[in-house]
Amino acid sequence: MKVTLDDPASVRALFERVRDVDAVVSCAGNAAFKPFAELTDADYELGLRSKLMGQVYLARTAKHHLRDGGSITLTTGVLATRPMPGSALFSLVNAGLEGFVRAAALEMPRGIRINAVSPPWVKETIVKLGMDPTPGLASADVAKAYVAAVEGSRQGEILEPSRFLG
Amino acid sequence: MKVTLDDPASVRALFERVRDVDAVVSCAGNAAFKPFAELTDADYELGLRSKLMGQVYLARTAKHHLRDGGSITLTTGVLATRPMPGSALFSLVNAGLEGFVRAAALEMPRGIRINAVSPPWVKETIVKLGMDPTPGLASADVAKAYVAAVEGSRQGEILEPSRFLG
Repeated sequence: MKVTLDDPASVRALFERVRDVDAVVSCAGNAAFKPFAELTDADYELGLRSKLMGQVYLARTAKHHLRDGGSITLTTGVLATRPMPGSALFSLVNAGLEGFVRAAALEMPRGIRINAVSPPWVKETIVKLGMDPTPGLASADVAKAYVAAVEGSRQGEILEPSRFLG
Repeated sequence: MKVTLDDPASVRALFERVRDVDAVVSCAGNAAFKPFAELTDADYELGLRSKLMGQVYLARTAKHHLRDGGSITLTTGVLATRPMPGSALFSLVNAGLEGFVRAAALEMPRGIRINAVSPPWVKETIVKLGMDPTPGLASADVAKAYVAAVEGSRQGEILEPSRFLG
């Protein structure tokens, strides 16, 4: 079934249909990457509603439906702590998510864990953007951090994929 | 004149009336401190609209009205990086602001600077809450970090008041 992250009703519908969930992993969310001077009210509104509060709502909802000891893994991104021109909104959204994850982890019931993966630029993404993919990390390598978040015992951590290679 | 941080029209009206501004300092903003399980959609909505996006909107607007070389100083808080039970929303808001400040600083025009002060618990606040003020920092000491943000040459920094004592 299709879920739209910034549509709370569709998130609720997901958990009404899918039962006995062990792990929720979110790699979704929109936000505009553009010069600070060009960011509009609508850009801020979408970034907050989608990548930021969409994932927060997913976590709030998943908490009620996960099995004991289940896990929630959200996606932030390198721009949270290492900004660049054009990242004002992304840096706000990603850093806000990291603050949320660190704090919400302190109050998760029934052994449920919550973490986030903070990916660098992904090689396949850079290729699609028509730029030099040399600085990127392959998505298969980024995925290892998600596996570590789901399978380990981490709680309230922000996982950088470079730590989980090789 | 009275400005309400979560009312963009009142922020715009401020800068239409007050001209030739050298520095904008914001110590305002609402957000709910309560258990994660009790945070409502309305709590998230207010926290985002007031302390987070209210200050972001203040910065976006001030940028157009400050003199060359002027400064913007926002307020985050210790919960951005050191969460505690009850701080899920505050940690989200404060961390998001810090991400925004670090990134927006890279694109400020005309020598304008933007920084944030991240206060610990303020002694006077703890007294008003009827709790032991021992761990708090007096507001006069917290203020020194704001002075450092306005008078120095810092750009994109998060200032912790404990660094500016004595």
